[in-house]
Amino acid sequence: MAKYCILVLSLLAISCSMAFAYEPSPLQDFCVADPASSAACLDAKLVKADHFSFSGLHIAGNTSNKFGSAVTPMTVAQLPGLNTLGISMVRIDYARWGVIPPHAHPRATEILTVLEGTVEAGFVTSNPDNRLVSKVLKKGDVFVFPVGLIHFQRNVGYGSAVAVASLSSQNPGLVTASGAVFGSKPAVPADILSKSFQLDKSVVEYLQTVF
Amino acid sequence: MAKYCILVLSLLAISCSMAFAYEPSPLQDFCVADPASSAACLDAKLVKADHFSFSGLHIAGNTSNKFGSAVTPMTVAQLPGLNTLGISMVRIDYARWGVIPPHAHPRATEILTVLEGTVEAGFVTSNPDNRLVSKVLKKGDVFVFPVGLIHFQRNVGYGSAVAVASLSSQNPGLVTASGAVFGSKPAVPADILSKSFQLDKSVVEYLQTVF
Amino acid sequence: MAKYCILVLSLLAISCSMAFAYEPSPLQDFCVADPASSAACLDAKLVKADHFSFSGLHIAGNTSNKFGSAVTPMTVAQLPGLNTLGISMVRIDYARWGVIPPHAHPRATEILTVLEGTVEAGFVTSNPDNRLVSKVLKKGDVFVFPVGLIHFQRNVGYGSAVAVASLSSQNPGLVTASGAVFGSKPAVPADILSKSFQLDKSVVEYLQTVF
Amino acid sequence: MAKYCILVLSLLAISCSMAFAYEPSPLQDFCVADPASSAACLDAKLVKADHFSFSGLHIAGNTSNKFGSAVTPMTVAQLPGLNTLGISMVRIDYARWGVIPPHAHPRATEILTVLEGTVEAGFVTSNPDNRLVSKVLKKGDVFVFPVGLIHFQRNVGYGSAVAVASLSSQNPGLVTASGAVFGSKPAVPADILSKSFQLDKSVVEYLQTVF
Amino acid sequence: MAKYCILVLSLLAISCSMAFAYEPSPLQDFCVADPASSAACLDAKLVKADHFSFSGLHIAGNTSNKFGSAVTPMTVAQLPGLNTLGISMVRIDYARWGVIPPHAHPRATEILTVLEGTVEAGFVTSNPDNRLVSKVLKKGDVFVFPVGLIHFQRNVGYGSAVAVASLSSQNPGLVTASGAVFGSKPAVPADILSKSFQLDKSVVEYLQTVF
Amino acid sequence: MAKYCILVLSLLAISCSMAFAYEPSPLQDFCVADPASSAACLDAKLVKADHFSFSGLHIAGNTSNKFGSAVTPMTVAQLPGLNTLGISMVRIDYARWGVIPPHAHPRATEILTVLEGTVEAGFVTSNPDNRLVSKVLKKGDVFVFPVGLIHFQRNVGYGSAVAVASLSSQNPGLVTASGAVFGSKPAVPADILSKSFQLDKSVVEYLQTVF
Repeated sequence: MAKYCILVLSLLAISCSMAFAYEPSPLQDFCVADPASSAACLDAKLVKADHFSFSGLHIAGNTSNKFGSAVTPMTVAQLPGLNTLGISMVRIDYARWGVIPPHAHPRATEILTVLEGTVEAGFVTSNPDNRLVSKVLKKGDVFVFPVGLIHFQRNVGYGSAVAVASLSSQNPGLVTASGAVFGSKPAVPADILSKSFQLDKSVVEYLQTVF
Repeated sequence: MAKYCILVLSLLAISCSMAFAYEPSPLQDFCVADPASSAACLDAKLVKADHFSFSGLHIAGNTSNKFGSAVTPMTVAQLPGLNTLGISMVRIDYARWGVIPPHAHPRATEILTVLEGTVEAGFVTSNPDNRLVSKVLKKGDVFVFPVGLIHFQRNVGYGSAVAVASLSSQNPGLVTASGAVFGSKPAVPADILSKSFQLDKSVVEYLQTVF
Repeated sequence: MAKYCILVLSLLAISCSMAFAYEPSPLQDFCVADPASSAACLDAKLVKADHFSFSGLHIAGNTSNKFGSAVTPMTVAQLPGLNTLGISMVRIDYARWGVIPPHAHPRATEILTVLEGTVEAGFVTSNPDNRLVSKVLKKGDVFVFPVGLIHFQRNVGYGSAVAVASLSSQNPGLVTASGAVFGSKPAVPADILSKSFQLDKSVVEYLQTVF
Repeated sequence: MAKYCILVLSLLAISCSMAFAYEPSPLQDFCVADPASSAACLDAKLVKADHFSFSGLHIAGNTSNKFGSAVTPMTVAQLPGLNTLGISMVRIDYARWGVIPPHAHPRATEILTVLEGTVEAGFVTSNPDNRLVSKVLKKGDVFVFPVGLIHFQRNVGYGSAVAVASLSSQNPGLVTASGAVFGSKPAVPADILSKSFQLDKSVVEYLQTVF
Repeated sequence: MAKYCILVLSLLAISCSMAFAYEPSPLQDFCVADPASSAACLDAKLVKADHFSFSGLHIAGNTSNKFGSAVTPMTVAQLPGLNTLGISMVRIDYARWGVIPPHAHPRATEILTVLEGTVEAGFVTSNPDNRLVSKVLKKGDVFVFPVGLIHFQRNVGYGSAVAVASLSSQNPGLVTASGAVFGSKPAVPADILSKSFQLDKSVVEYLQTVF
Repeated sequence: MAKYCILVLSLLAISCSMAFAYEPSPLQDFCVADPASSAACLDAKLVKADHFSFSGLHIAGNTSNKFGSAVTPMTVAQLPGLNTLGISMVRIDYARWGVIPPHAHPRATEILTVLEGTVEAGFVTSNPDNRLVSKVLKKGDVFVFPVGLIHFQRNVGYGSAVAVASLSSQNPGLVTASGAVFGSKPAVPADILSKSFQLDKSVVEYLQTVF
């Protein structure tokens, strides 16, 4: 216990004012993420237009994967000028019948805009309703996925499809239902998943090899 | 499950009219949710101590359901004085081997405190790591589930177990992975889930009958 | 200009009744703006997918006006499901040499994405630096305009241009430098503007007839 | 103008490097407080389950003191994983007739849950009403103390009592009325307190020796 | 319906515009508190300059009271245009040796500016330090009282004194240590205060007659 | 999938170390800006009353400049104790007919209080209304300028005038319409301004030499 107390005490001594990383109104015009320091803004004199720009959103992603889709992100990781500003974007490509599997963004609402093709999009409300709200979107249609709710898309047109999405966080986060449940490292004990999903333990173990 | 469902349902029934506001710093000492108006505070002269209190957290929930667990909520729906104040609680009962299935709270971080028994608890970080962070908790142990991440619990002791959890929202929301994915109304098209989970369409359709 | 004005006017006409709330973390899954009450969420049972969708973003706006540009908004006024969710979008069309005049959004950071053509984009930092940060954007390039700073765009390519922009507010607001200064109703006294802009009073009075 | 510019320039020169510590929505899954740096998150690869857990909440605190009570905190100081997540807990032990003296948490609302015994709990609304809202709580009862308001508790049962409390901040802060007023270091001038509390200066000076 | 309307109206009559809202970034240019509805903005067409202005800050308050001080507020109750904008002001007059007794604002940081006279001002940090941070202020000096901390002032000059204070909330709230502890209605049980302040019960009961 | 994973992985690798600077509820009593580190609070043991105070607000600024006005700021740059606390002040001096030219504060609402003289003050609402809301203020009058809107003042009395203003940010920012539009460095291309303001290019180029 002694050692622990010393740890905690010294932690407190330093922390007194723990500091960190949140997303409301900024305190300055902008705060370009500084690669040399995880907690400071880049010196304003070193800031350039390139910190606020990114190229390549017109380039199709590679959809040759089991989901038939590709996501090209433009978050604070690609665009350091987005730091503290509460917004980001992605491009999404869908092969024919390609899906974006059920997932949620813990820190962002999303507006999806279909640029080409026909995409079925939906989200599910929280418990106990679990109501599916969905729509088939054509070119020029937009759809909103409220923050934290599970949503998905599927290309239901005759060719590939393209969309852009706006997200209300510089780093929206991505929680994929299949990945978080069946693909965690280390694995969630199969017993728990078997009971939770009412699936045979062998099916759970199979799924754990897939994700 | 019945009691749990009824509890949660009644919670929703009430909370539907809990106004649309938001959760930062309040503008007054408190704003007791007014049952007669979804967007106003109850007249301060009508506010009583009972608006800030709730009884029965010592009563065990009924765990005779497929998950072997029960959740007794104390959110703004049960405690109208919590309105605008950013916090709530639940009691959780676990039968032997009972589980709280993988789920996330879109609007709250949770601190779980084990009062009786031994509970395995874990959460999974977001993509692409999907790292499982878990621990076996004994009486008097606490564990934190960060906002928006999928987490679960399982009673791994020799008898029943009891915990209380604190949540950083007056209305944390509950997104159950199995319920949102396989139990939505109407159902998510089986084709989408089949591709997303790499499951045979017949397994998906079976799961959709269970949830 | 006419179409632009009508669009913006109709936007305001509706948004005037969009309630007075605020923009941090919501207290429920969503809160569709209720046309019958400016301060409550629409009853969840009446919520439909259409509340979260909007069509027509692929249709070019009419750029036959003095600026040679058109803005098609998708804010909470067009998409009531955006209420409380902190994000919106616009489509921008530029005729050859068309400009979006210097303006600021008091409540939103903007990410501009060029879909077609070549657009020069820039913003000016706050006092005392007033530094211009600008770039010529080609198809697939994005650029960030931090919240509250004055920014502008100009089509510098050989044909028309198209962009979409994401904004970090359900109702970003639009303060046009020329309109707010020279076009207010009633007019700002010409003496004040003459001294502030170091312009002859006759030039100020001419400008006040233009905007 | 020169003076004005210099003033503003020096303002900017300094303000470019201001930074901070707040409590809204996090920008990442979690940000474990890093003992080696008060303003950065611990490297995610070094994060362990122990950063999110704490043991010993079942152990009674020592109530042999003038108030007859003991508080065992679990805030970000004990649980570094709570950093940026807006919640914490405490255990409270009460000897017979033990009190938690009037105090306020400047940064948190509190939900008190009585686990054993009978506790009288109350808070006082702000000026000009100063209304006392109080209740006698039995095992399983909860009570809410809104953020910033003065509140207190007293064991009114026949034996010792135990409660846990949830607080809506990782670092709620504690302002004790007696300690802040009569126990500050250095002391508030006795003249001020004598006039403020309408107490004889000798009584004030006596109180200043006690706290 | 009539009864309901009367309820809401009487609520408003008291609260002027306390309303239920919150205090982060607004969703529109402004939201003048609407006397006819506690949760909506006044129709923009009815908004006038008078909603944003207030007269009389140059008029001295009446300091003939036991504290020798007077506070003239300009919060959202006097200035309905402040609604949703997060700021307010007060004028403070001090007779010779007048005090502003120890108090805290649960929702606002305060900047005090001395316009005339000499004022001693101080605040006390939270537990466990309870450190007094104080200074004697002359004409033209300012001092900051951080949100939620107990602070006080005393006129220590040879004549009366005047100050203005800025507060970071449209409705800062006022918790007076003496009033909340000894002046609540109904009274806090004297036993609790006797033990909490280590005062003879008769002294407590005397104090309870004063406040 | 491979490309997608790599993209997402690189996103995470970088974003783990993003950090920041915002303005909601603080995490500790105060966080005095530390000149030795842009992202940490000054060690509490080194904090002094002087960090929370500033002198000289009674000293008139020098108004011998083209605008006939002077602004003396007290923001976090002058008062490091304001850090994280969301408020600041300025003193404004006006020579006879002096103006504060049209400008906006991207991060703060302002309350102006006239201490001496007669000042005309106004703000312009956002598009499409651009409505001027203005008033002539005498000694003791206050006026509110909502966050992000363009506003101005002019001394319309017979002598000099003095005001103090409270601002709802520790670092409000200052965007001057003339400076941002005509005085940026480098200059905004004259073509853009000529079209935006419907001014002859020669007038634009003249203005660019003035600001």
